[in-house]
Amino acid sequence: MPSRTISAARSAVCFAIGLFLLLSFPAIAQEGPGTLNLMPIPSKLSLTGGKLRLNENFAMGALGEAGPRSRKAAARFMDRLAGRTGIFFKQDYRTDFITSGNATFLFKYETAGRLELNENESYALTVSPDRIMIIARTDLGVLHGFETILQLLDADAQGHFIPCARLDDQPRFPWRGLLIDAGRHFMPVEVIKRNLDGMAAVKMNVLHWHLSEDQGFRVECRAFPLLHQLGSDGHYYTQDQIRDVIAYAADRGIRVMPEFDIPGHSTSWLVGYPELAGGPGPYRIERRWGVFDPVFNPTDEATYRFFDKFFEEMAPLFPDRYVHIGGDENNGKQWDANPKIQQFKKDHNLADNHALQAYFNGRILAILTRLGKKMVGWDEIFQPGLPKDIVIQSWRGKQALIDSAQKGYQGLLSNGYYIDLCQPASFHYLNDPLSADAPLEEQEQGLVLGGEATMWSELVTPETIDSRIWPRTAAIAERLWSSADVKDVEDMYRRLDSIAIRLEELGLTHFKNQEMLLRRLAGGADIGPLRTLVDVIEPLKQYRRQNQGVTYTQLSPLTRAVDAAAPESRSARIFRKMTDEFLQTRDPKTANALKTQLQLWRSNHRFLSPLLKTAPALAEIEPLSEDLYTVADLGIQALDAILARTTGDRTWVNESLGSLQQAKKPKAQAELALLPAIEKLVQATLSK
Amino acid sequence: MPSRTISAARSAVCFAIGLFLLLSFPAIAQEGPGTLNLMPIPSKLSLTGGKLRLNENFAMGALGEAGPRSRKAAARFMDRLAGRTGIFFKQDYRTDFITSGNATFLFKYETAGRLELNENESYALTVSPDRIMIIARTDLGVLHGFETILQLLDADAQGHFIPCARLDDQPRFPWRGLLIDAGRHFMPVEVIKRNLDGMAAVKMNVLHWHLSEDQGFRVECRAFPLLHQLGSDGHYYTQDQIRDVIAYAADRGIRVMPEFDIPGHSTSWLVGYPELAGGPGPYRIERRWGVFDPVFNPTDEATYRFFDKFFEEMAPLFPDRYVHIGGDENNGKQWDANPKIQQFKKDHNLADNHALQAYFNGRILAILTRLGKKMVGWDEIFQPGLPKDIVIQSWRGKQALIDSAQKGYQGLLSNGYYIDLCQPASFHYLNDPLSADAPLEEQEQGLVLGGEATMWSELVTPETIDSRIWPRTAAIAERLWSSADVKDVEDMYRRLDSIAIRLEELGLTHFKNQEMLLRRLAGGADIGPLRTLVDVIEPLKQYRRQNQGVTYTQLSPLTRAVDAAAPESRSARIFRKMTDEFLQTRDPKTANALKTQLQLWRSNHRFLSPLLKTAPALAEIEPLSEDLYTVADLGIQALDAILARTTGDRTWVNESLGSLQQAKKPKAQAELALLPAIEKLVQATLSK
Repeated sequence: MPSRTISAARSAVCFAIGLFLLLSFPAIAQEGPGTLNLMPIPSKLSLTGGKLRLNENFAMGALGEAGPRSRKAAARFMDRLAGRTGIFFKQDYRTDFITSGNATFLFKYETAGRLELNENESYALTVSPDRIMIIARTDLGVLHGFETILQLLDADAQGHFIPCARLDDQPRFPWRGLLIDAGRHFMPVEVIKRNLDGMAAVKMNVLHWHLSEDQGFRVECRAFPLLHQLGSDGHYYTQDQIRDVIAYAADRGIRVMPEFDIPGHSTSWLVGYPELAGGPGPYRIERRWGVFDPVFNPTDEATYRFFDKFFEEMAPLFPDRYVHIGGDENNGKQWDANPKIQQFKKDHNLADNHALQAYFNGRILAILTRLGKKMVGWDEIFQPGLPKDIVIQSWRGKQALIDSAQKGYQGLLSNGYYIDLCQPASFHYLNDPLSADAPLEEQEQGLVLGGEATMWSELVTPETIDSRIWPRTAAIAERLWSSADVKDVEDMYRRLDSIAIRLEELGLTHFKNQEMLLRRLAGGADIGPLRTLVDVIEPLKQYRRQNQGVTYTQLSPLTRAVDAAAPESRSARIFRKMTDEFLQTRDPKTANALKTQLQLWRSNHRFLSPLLKTAPALAEIEPLSEDLYTVADLGIQALDAILARTTGDRTWVNESLGSLQQAKKPKAQAELALLPAIEKLVQATLSK
Repeated sequence: MPSRTISAARSAVCFAIGLFLLLSFPAIAQEGPGTLNLMPIPSKLSLTGGKLRLNENFAMGALGEAGPRSRKAAARFMDRLAGRTGIFFKQDYRTDFITSGNATFLFKYETAGRLELNENESYALTVSPDRIMIIARTDLGVLHGFETILQLLDADAQGHFIPCARLDDQPRFPWRGLLIDAGRHFMPVEVIKRNLDGMAAVKMNVLHWHLSEDQGFRVECRAFPLLHQLGSDGHYYTQDQIRDVIAYAADRGIRVMPEFDIPGHSTSWLVGYPELAGGPGPYRIERRWGVFDPVFNPTDEATYRFFDKFFEEMAPLFPDRYVHIGGDENNGKQWDANPKIQQFKKDHNLADNHALQAYFNGRILAILTRLGKKMVGWDEIFQPGLPKDIVIQSWRGKQALIDSAQKGYQGLLSNGYYIDLCQPASFHYLNDPLSADAPLEEQEQGLVLGGEATMWSELVTPETIDSRIWPRTAAIAERLWSSADVKDVEDMYRRLDSIAIRLEELGLTHFKNQEMLLRRLAGGADIGPLRTLVDVIEPLKQYRRQNQGVTYTQLSPLTRAVDAAAPESRSARIFRKMTDEFLQTRDPKTANALKTQLQLWRSNHRFLSPLLKTAPALAEIEPLSEDLYTVADLGIQALDAILARTTGDRTWVNESLGSLQQAKKPKAQAELALLPAIEKLVQATLSK
């Protein structure tokens, strides 16, 4: 029998926690240019007044010919428009495609876009009260226009509408990528597909598919089947699945660049082919995270015969012009320990392992060039003398990007876009591949192709990866698409809140899997108080989570409170912002809202406590829950003191700062995201 | 700027609504046999006392040889065990598989199970304080044992444990199926896969994959490529995907039976091959729901040449012994209108269309028999004279099952298991394929193979289908596995609450997509009050939803409140049950709980109202929201009157019943699920 002893009063309190924050953005965007929820912001936009009203007669079609990509995208557009508005459109938009001028929504383009760097992606969009029109050079532009319309969709008491507008839009950078690491944790096809849909929604155009790692080789290889048979635990993509994903991406205007990380990060390759390694085997799939010794032997011609055949098979499987060869983090230990390799270095005047790796890269480059491919690598591969059509992807720092551009190489920025490190969207948003102060000539600037958000997968699974990618990656997408002067952080966050919910319609799980994980942790109980706590914690940032006395491996569960927590707590962000505003304005209404919130947080531990004692996987967050009580209480005391305008009590402040210092210590690999605000409140009691 | 005018008090009230119900089952199952959360209930179980404690040293392996199916299942078992407990197991259970006796958890089986009807699925399970052991005839039994262990997993203040026990378990029926209709709405591979995982979790063993319909032909066909090219809108399974799904199912001990529904329900086939139809074309993919005229021409030898080649291609693609040919709902209009077909009937002494269809079935049966397949069809195909190894699936009534068994035919029950019709789990649960009063001899009883839950997809999409399948299908799974005398409805619901949450770890979206849909409908606003209302409504049952002045087609959005509502409201069910108990006991504490809940419901409309006025897709539920206010108020008045023991006021009762009658009228294709309880409370004011 279910227990019924829980009083409704308790429920009322514990479920209210965190609520006013969630309530604090409006259901429907207000009208006016400043409240549109476009992301990325288009190049040029003017609202021309009036609204195109949607109803069941809304119908779409093309002016002139429309190829399969735009027709399929048009059908998906209509599906989403119907799904979001609930309108039963009369048009059978899957069978009947209007190609005369009689549609509400018409598009027109000149030529099918090629999925190549620098293809034209621009579009012009006009919305008048009775007609939407997209005109583009290629169908890629048309697809971007569809997404813009879906972001413009709005509603008022009369129903759904598109505001009348005129847009001209095109990207600032031609390479706007997302790296998904399917090597460390395998990501099934549906994970890749839903993220491709997310990318298309924010106008990203390159999936960088990281397909091999020490922990897994993820591609069916017919020439060397032991790669996937022994190197993947059975978790690999068949070639049919790869073709399916690439076709899916192409339908969305997205290029797919594979990465095969060599010569290091390659343990999983060597499980099946130990004879290609720089040291003696046998090898087993690596379960730990880090940099490991196994590496290909760059001095053995068998290695190049292997890669010759390997890339011969992979080149047509991945039709994109670019192939990423990784090239990062080879610790060189196997090379140092191998006398034959040492001798080879001497014989070939290779001063050090860096030079030896450059030799290896050159050999791989020759293979790729023969196959018509261009080579991309992490910034370690940069070596003067390489041909100028390789691309350097900078992960270690922005300087590498500048250096290589100055030497005439194309580059991509990923430093500052490491979304696995759980930093705030604002941090990534303000990270410009080409900041105004970059010491680059105009021609050199043109070598900066764009950037890529990188979703490394040590600490994510298919259940949690979306929550690390979205919505923050939408802010990076805007950085890479929109003008450099679009950098209002507050407005970005306002739009991100809206985009985040719209991204869910693509199947992305960034919100919905949080409660699922909490239900699992709680074993079915009420998750209200648990959600309230998890809502204000964030996983430790950068690499600190790996450094807390817990050794993560590929087999470790990623199902705990820290995994359910969002990388950036929205509630805490809003609380911090309101605190800042209160401290400027001393507005009593704001104080009241802050205090009510703090009271709800303070009372949460009482309601959460019983669950923490009976659900073993939650025991670790008890100190966090206690901290929430403590710091909320400090915040309330501080607010009361500020409002009472009493003279500050330095002893209390010092004690309180001591408590906050204790609260700052990581617990359960997470931290309370509202501490900076509480600290400001405490400090503010000292000033009048 | 986010609005901040919402008072926390409002939040506190509106979020509390519905809460005490959600809080009303315990986080962790209490100990004792009556509180185990097993579903289906095993044949024999005794708790032997004590607990096997889980810690990081827990390791598993096999005694004797273990084939790939059990090894892969063992790795998935460990993944789930780690995920649910948060324990970092030391064993590298993907590479190192213990085959000596040194594991905490050992299993042993004699032979690899064949995926055939009547294969042995039994297992014996022993849990002692330091060892788990599964012994089975086949690896299919081992897999069932894994699921049982995961259901036995429990926790107390000391941590996670498995209670010591001894089980002997085997299914009552050999055919325990789920039909998924991928014809009407296409269901991508990941939908099928996650539901296969759900089936395995509750020990179901047949996926009945409904692959063709008037609205779509869903299989890549190389002999007749226009089938999928013109009949599917591009939404079909490639043969590689089908092989992948079948392998995935086989890994989970599940057979996959394809259904190609002929000769009716076949418009989509005829789009590409109109010459095979009974009437003149052209045809287009049907968008409406219902029974349509297009049908194969059973009198033309070209039809049989087509099916000969068609099934030659499909037979090896689907290795299961059984092929389902549908055979339902041919309205005969094309046959009646075609003079050549009429002449054929005369020439061959075929009295009516039923006889003509029997002729067609006989020809198809001959093709399937030649290909080594057995034929299954809906009960319309039943025709004396057919060979005895066909299987009749009863959808129109249980009598058809009895009739065919009496005539010596094997049968499956689906009547009463139509989970698309949104009936309560208890209804399906008590529907026994072989009820005690069935007029069948023992030998005839053996012809009843089991049953299948049928998930027809007129009104579901990949977003909502899981919520129609789960958790109710777990109750059907128990009916088909467990002893006939396992039929305690209350206990079934108690266990279902737990199983429902555990099913989420398989990727099923039955809970999590509800809030996603509500966020979309609300456009990002607080969904608290919206959830409170949707939590107590249910979609209209049976076929009434199709009959509300709204014409659904394949392109209609299924994203409204009625789609977000669960088929069976848990909150309303518990409220109804508490009401019944209160009316028996007149316990004031229960009354208080009921009243608190009613007050929260009554206040909900005030909080929901503003959203209903600004979110156009929600306008339709305003009357439901008003009804919730009205009936909650009536409930409170009734409770007060009952508690005050005043003489009943018949006028008030009559007026109230009138209001309830109004509230019973369907709105937004849904209904308030708590009306029966309110009606009982109102009526009870008249009795002392």
